[in-house]
Amino acid sequence: MSTLGACVDQVRANVPLVHNITNYVTVNDVANVLLACGGSPIMSDDPKDVEDITSICGGLNINIGTLNQRTVEGMFLAGKKANELGHAVLLDPVGAGASAFRTETALKLIQEIKFDVIRGNISEIKTLALGSGTTKGVDADVADAVTEENLDQSIAFVKTFAEKMGCIIAVTGAIDLVSDGTKCYVIRNGRPEMGKITGTGCQLSGVMTAFITANPEEKLKAAAAAVCTMGLAGEIGFSRMQEGDGNSTYRNRIIDAIYNMDQKTLDEGAKYEVR
Amino acid sequence: MSTLGACVDQVRANVPLVHNITNYVTVNDVANVLLACGGSPIMSDDPKDVEDITSICGGLNINIGTLNQRTVEGMFLAGKKANELGHAVLLDPVGAGASAFRTETALKLIQEIKFDVIRGNISEIKTLALGSGTTKGVDADVADAVTEENLDQSIAFVKTFAEKMGCIIAVTGAIDLVSDGTKCYVIRNGRPEMGKITGTGCQLSGVMTAFITANPEEKLKAAAAAVCTMGLAGEIGFSRMQEGDGNSTYRNRIIDAIYNMDQKTLDEGAKYEVR
Amino acid sequence: MSTLGACVDQVRANVPLVHNITNYVTVNDVANVLLACGGSPIMSDDPKDVEDITSICGGLNINIGTLNQRTVEGMFLAGKKANELGHAVLLDPVGAGASAFRTETALKLIQEIKFDVIRGNISEIKTLALGSGTTKGVDADVADAVTEENLDQSIAFVKTFAEKMGCIIAVTGAIDLVSDGTKCYVIRNGRPEMGKITGTGCQLSGVMTAFITANPEEKLKAAAAAVCTMGLAGEIGFSRMQEGDGNSTYRNRIIDAIYNMDQKTLDEGAKYEVR
Repeated sequence: MSTLGACVDQVRANVPLVHNITNYVTVNDVANVLLACGGSPIMSDDPKDVEDITSICGGLNINIGTLNQRTVEGMFLAGKKANELGHAVLLDPVGAGASAFRTETALKLIQEIKFDVIRGNISEIKTLALGSGTTKGVDADVADAVTEENLDQSIAFVKTFAEKMGCIIAVTGAIDLVSDGTKCYVIRNGRPEMGKITGTGCQLSGVMTAFITANPEEKLKAAAAAVCTMGLAGEIGFSRMQEGDGNSTYRNRIIDAIYNMDQKTLDEGAKYEVR
Repeated sequence: MSTLGACVDQVRANVPLVHNITNYVTVNDVANVLLACGGSPIMSDDPKDVEDITSICGGLNINIGTLNQRTVEGMFLAGKKANELGHAVLLDPVGAGASAFRTETALKLIQEIKFDVIRGNISEIKTLALGSGTTKGVDADVADAVTEENLDQSIAFVKTFAEKMGCIIAVTGAIDLVSDGTKCYVIRNGRPEMGKITGTGCQLSGVMTAFITANPEEKLKAAAAAVCTMGLAGEIGFSRMQEGDGNSTYRNRIIDAIYNMDQKTLDEGAKYEVR
Repeated sequence: MSTLGACVDQVRANVPLVHNITNYVTVNDVANVLLACGGSPIMSDDPKDVEDITSICGGLNINIGTLNQRTVEGMFLAGKKANELGHAVLLDPVGAGASAFRTETALKLIQEIKFDVIRGNISEIKTLALGSGTTKGVDADVADAVTEENLDQSIAFVKTFAEKMGCIIAVTGAIDLVSDGTKCYVIRNGRPEMGKITGTGCQLSGVMTAFITANPEEKLKAAAAAVCTMGLAGEIGFSRMQEGDGNSTYRNRIIDAIYNMDQKTLDEGAKYEVR
């Protein structure tokens, strides 16, 4: 059976073209991290442009951060076209639970578009599961956090929601959970300092879209491999930090580590169990 | 009496959530510098989203760079809601004086929204005070510059305008002036090379919003502390530059220096007098 | 006769103010690279703002990546105003050939606006010449690539299209071609790893606009000098890469190298022939 690391090589071999409708805060990092992992990014959000652009791609990454009424229309058009064409489609419900517009947009997206993966922090995912939430801006509410103490219940929640949605749910935080409803990867890569960089979640969604696009037969494994890749890159990047460095240099070091990621590095560094 | 450095620790202790309606040129740096100084950023500009988002935050940073008709509507809605809730609100009138749309938007914002701080370069601030100006794009007109020669008149101008507006005015340049109409901090931190990085002013506005949000009883001191923090970070970052480095690396080094800023470093490095 | 390197010094001496209507993916890098090469950037895309902003500038850079219906209107208004005022105007037709909206917008822009330079990858330029194309997202179709084998035909194509358009055509890739219809610079600076950074093409368009604005009497030479500057910066930046570095650090190193570029460095490092 192939390893998580094999998914990395598949991305580099296939160079998946990924269409991103994403926020303007972290879009440059999403583009660079997609190139770093072996994908090819294109960004397009206008209703007049998105159907053509998504048609030439293999995957679609919808991220609702800094959404507006025009780009939301683009999200629905692109998502439906991608569904028609059988492309891999991922949702990153940034800030669902923090505003009615974000919550309602995310809930409507998961009703009308078939997603392969929904990836968010625990508060965003709970918001989608429950219909409302208490997301703290773009960060999870600490009261929601997945911990060693509540791990069994958290896994059960993620599995149940994945089964209900018929897609992969990826909840990321100090402990990451990735489940298709049957199996659940519990991943412990990463560093707490990654939370001091804007957009590591957005970057992961971009990378994950490339991984599931390039590994269509093993999307659960590919989604888990993407989480391990990002977390391990956070560890490798941190090990290269020097006296006086801070979050801006750390951002560069993480993307650099993804640029240098390969099958062997990931297989040796991935920290996960399957439950 | 507490020092400027104490304001830094207050930001790290309180982790103020700051809503930013800001330009897409420097938004990523604004988010990372807010995280670096101890705040938590969220960006949102759509009229349907801004009131909810600003309601969960403690401070609002309105920056009119790359404004458009939709985001301008968002600025007014967010500003009014933030005023209702008693949040700290800052205006960065990027390019006021360079176009009629920017000048008129900035003038209308200061009429309809109560700001705690207006922070800009001298040409932008003169434009607001006089109703028109000669801002050179996003840079001050050299004819307007605050210098040792015109310092007394410049201080008098800033104090008078601060008193008239009933808020703090922060004019930044080679010499920075921060006044509430009574006292004026004259600050000489910083490096001229900071002008070769896009958005150090936008970054300062983000940091300053976090500082005044986390230090509500001492907003003048907090605003001055933010200016010293940014300038001192420019000095520290510059000291770490190596042969062959340029403005892109310098940008990272400055944000890194803010990430590592603490009370002691600021109190030892701040260069200011109160007039 | 002046050298290519002399064009660099002209930019630093004149500090051309460049108005950019550009995509939100790479806009921060475009601003920083414009500052690095000695220009001064301002970004503005709203129909209500662009005419005033372009009026105070010397050059206009129109980049259609992440275009939308509002910004397209801004492109036409700004372009016409810049033409009226005799400003240098450049088009970067990002993704022309990848969607009908992009192709039609680019074709309409070259009909209604007089450009000094059109700069794109070979697939984008072929799309403009032929009216349709097969651009692979934001990258050229490999079937279109300029190679040593098809160099004579490629030069002939670029010269013919430049003559027909009455402007400079700059096709960039592994081999770059810059022609005014009479002469063609064939340039071999650069590194293949530059393709792993998002927006090196967008950055070049920004730099090139500064170069033609500051060298109005020698626009062909200035456009070629900009291409050599970007490519040479890619070589210098690469030479500074260390074990573990990747595309994010490389991005910073290239902008840094442009920050340090001068006449002598460019004249010694430029690799070109005139055909």
